[in-house]
Amino acid sequence: MQWVRKHLLGLEELSAEEINFILDRADSFKEICTRPNKKVPALSGRTIINMFFENSTRTNLSFQLAARRLSADVLLFSKAGTSVAKGETMIDTAQNIEAMGVDVMVLRHGASGAPWKLARCVSCAVVNAGDGQHEHPTQALLDLYTIREVCGGIAGLTVGIVGDIAHSRVARSNIWGLTKLGARVMLIGPTTLIPRDIERMGVSGVEVCHDMDRAVRECRVLNMLRIQFERQGERPFPSIREYIQMFGLTRERLAKGREDLVVMHPGPVNRGVEISPEVADGPQSVILRQVANGLAVRMAVLQLVAGVE
Amino acid sequence: MQWVRKHLLGLEELSAEEINFILDRADSFKEICTRPNKKVPALSGRTIINMFFENSTRTNLSFQLAARRLSADVLLFSKAGTSVAKGETMIDTAQNIEAMGVDVMVLRHGASGAPWKLARCVSCAVVNAGDGQHEHPTQALLDLYTIREVCGGIAGLTVGIVGDIAHSRVARSNIWGLTKLGARVMLIGPTTLIPRDIERMGVSGVEVCHDMDRAVRECRVLNMLRIQFERQGERPFPSIREYIQMFGLTRERLAKGREDLVVMHPGPVNRGVEISPEVADGPQSVILRQVANGLAVRMAVLQLVAGVE
Amino acid sequence: MQWVRKHLLGLEELSAEEINFILDRADSFKEICTRPNKKVPALSGRTIINMFFENSTRTNLSFQLAARRLSADVLLFSKAGTSVAKGETMIDTAQNIEAMGVDVMVLRHGASGAPWKLARCVSCAVVNAGDGQHEHPTQALLDLYTIREVCGGIAGLTVGIVGDIAHSRVARSNIWGLTKLGARVMLIGPTTLIPRDIERMGVSGVEVCHDMDRAVRECRVLNMLRIQFERQGERPFPSIREYIQMFGLTRERLAKGREDLVVMHPGPVNRGVEISPEVADGPQSVILRQVANGLAVRMAVLQLVAGVE
Repeated sequence: MQWVRKHLLGLEELSAEEINFILDRADSFKEICTRPNKKVPALSGRTIINMFFENSTRTNLSFQLAARRLSADVLLFSKAGTSVAKGETMIDTAQNIEAMGVDVMVLRHGASGAPWKLARCVSCAVVNAGDGQHEHPTQALLDLYTIREVCGGIAGLTVGIVGDIAHSRVARSNIWGLTKLGARVMLIGPTTLIPRDIERMGVSGVEVCHDMDRAVRECRVLNMLRIQFERQGERPFPSIREYIQMFGLTRERLAKGREDLVVMHPGPVNRGVEISPEVADGPQSVILRQVANGLAVRMAVLQLVAGVE
Repeated sequence: MQWVRKHLLGLEELSAEEINFILDRADSFKEICTRPNKKVPALSGRTIINMFFENSTRTNLSFQLAARRLSADVLLFSKAGTSVAKGETMIDTAQNIEAMGVDVMVLRHGASGAPWKLARCVSCAVVNAGDGQHEHPTQALLDLYTIREVCGGIAGLTVGIVGDIAHSRVARSNIWGLTKLGARVMLIGPTTLIPRDIERMGVSGVEVCHDMDRAVRECRVLNMLRIQFERQGERPFPSIREYIQMFGLTRERLAKGREDLVVMHPGPVNRGVEISPEVADGPQSVILRQVANGLAVRMAVLQLVAGVE
Repeated sequence: MQWVRKHLLGLEELSAEEINFILDRADSFKEICTRPNKKVPALSGRTIINMFFENSTRTNLSFQLAARRLSADVLLFSKAGTSVAKGETMIDTAQNIEAMGVDVMVLRHGASGAPWKLARCVSCAVVNAGDGQHEHPTQALLDLYTIREVCGGIAGLTVGIVGDIAHSRVARSNIWGLTKLGARVMLIGPTTLIPRDIERMGVSGVEVCHDMDRAVRECRVLNMLRIQFERQGERPFPSIREYIQMFGLTRERLAKGREDLVVMHPGPVNRGVEISPEVADGPQSVILRQVANGLAVRMAVLQLVAGVE
């Protein structure tokens, strides 16, 4: 296969072959990330800009570091204190930045679909670093990479995603990626947090489950989503205490599950809410490995969209 | 000619020969900016700091990128959350930063004259990236560069500057640069936004015009200034609607002008106010080319003041 | 001697030999800092992150520049607008950042002891860039370096530290460093700003003095601490005017002191409070030299903890 896409916008539009191509490419960067000198000249003289219209620590740092390790120059743009405050639109800002000679724009934006809109208006490459409640493709790619690495493959596995599926771009991108690669996806959470028509959305291999105890017995992997308190104006569940009791991944609950159950979390973790501290730091958790793999995956993505071999 | 100035503070103090010297130097960087690998080792091991005491997106990014393309190390300093908040003066801050071994300071400041004050207190080079309502020399240089590139020269052209001339550092630097290079400058706007004594300020070749329709017929280039709503506490014109009707550059008005009229704007654009969207994005607009040329011009300026050949 | 420490946390735990080892190493970097091209490849391909949970201008810039001059990649993290706001703990943040493959974390934190806590939780090197009112080892090291450079040695000197000793991490680190290297330390200030048990804290060679006029006569070096108005909720002295009169270093007071008295200040200076402007800028002041030496000292520290020879 040859990589022909200009952008990386979402996993919905990628084929299984393309997803595997990225994961394979990430393998070679993973090896580089273990050396003392982690820098390669791949994107020397190229310019990558992180355009973050939403706050972020780790995704922003991860993309920065991935770009630097490829020897690209990195510019940072975030919303606060810029001409966006002066009323300039995202597209105007982006076209101006592009005119300076930028090769790749990494966009995080609160509006679903923003990266597609951007990609239509600029001629450089666009990478989606999270758009609204829609997609977060590099997060899902690093999740897939980690599952493949830990479990030896993805096809045939049962992977559970637990929490606020309805509002989660991480869940959405994972559902696309996992099903394309042949996993069975179990969505676990209260009915209020799972989109009603998910099983009818045309993706085969997805089922809904409201019983967390069954999930820990049946799943090979559990991806614990973060409860986003900042978004819970409407309070879709009665209380945190009740949520923890029903869906929290505690040591007790984990002990009743498969012995080889792998625990994932996209971070930042609410310790003691969706996951207890002992589980987050325990032997079945691969949370920090996900972060490490994010570097390799993002290096692969940036190199591919930059079109430099 | 040989470049002898240590700083780039304003166009008022530059000779026509010096301005042309910078524009010629920018030519060679423009070529570099079209390559896939846009990096040259000119300022390798040198340190440039952007000291921005006013918010800015594009000027800050443009200087950052220009410095990186010259292989300099770039430090960023902005006012928010620094010891300026602890009451330290700009000069104290600058002298401390200089002591760390900085080669060039790029200063944006809300007070007119700040870069001159800074240049007297430090021994490194100072570049003015906009001071109050006074000068914005690199913006004017990139405007001149773009006019020269598009029109084949500057002497003898009629160049209109439209809008709030009285409070615009872009206008002021353009007036100096254009007249020095032999252009005729037409200042267009309501009487409240044009300094009363402009025609008496000793610069020959400047005239005032309150008739935008005449301006589009006579000018070869129109530089549309941004209406700075954030500064309009006093409201120098009755209403936005009336301003647009009298001075806005709409498609209809443009159609009555010279066929080869070139439309410029220093950005960020208020679409639908000083300029309509179709004109900003239309074939006569060179707005994005100005941005691209800004890189080449700033690379030339940084290299010249850094004194490295 | 060979450097074996993984972290640089505080001067209390360093031996005189280790302190001298750092100062000697800084000597070679000082020479590099005087060249036009100040960059060396020592930490090429290594990654250093500045984690600043408190605002800072100069320390942050100084560490950034030191890291860049060693050719490391530098990431910046500060508290505002990050997932710390989402409730994530410092340790969670740090472990995630570490998983990306960071070699050195430079931590500034408002809580005394934070760097030790961090060092226990990550496997990369930690450098303390100031923790609460506890230690600021690189500031003390650059002070020691400057004293050694200016006075030709440290043992046997009388060095005064003037001001709010009780709340100053700079004072604390200086006391450890100076006494270990054989200086006599005089702590000068109002009783409310000097810890009561300082002379009993087991450090020999420390005495308290409330008479500034005696201090200028006896001390070879005076390190004037900044009055931290932002911390003075409780107002430990009656008025600024009275403080200046009793402890301010004015030209008149300085004239009564030793002719070879060296004046230091960790910055930022409150001109006209703890030190008058003529003294801060006068011939006996080495304030800007301290800043310059800070680069060399921090390059030495970063290279040592990074473990790359």
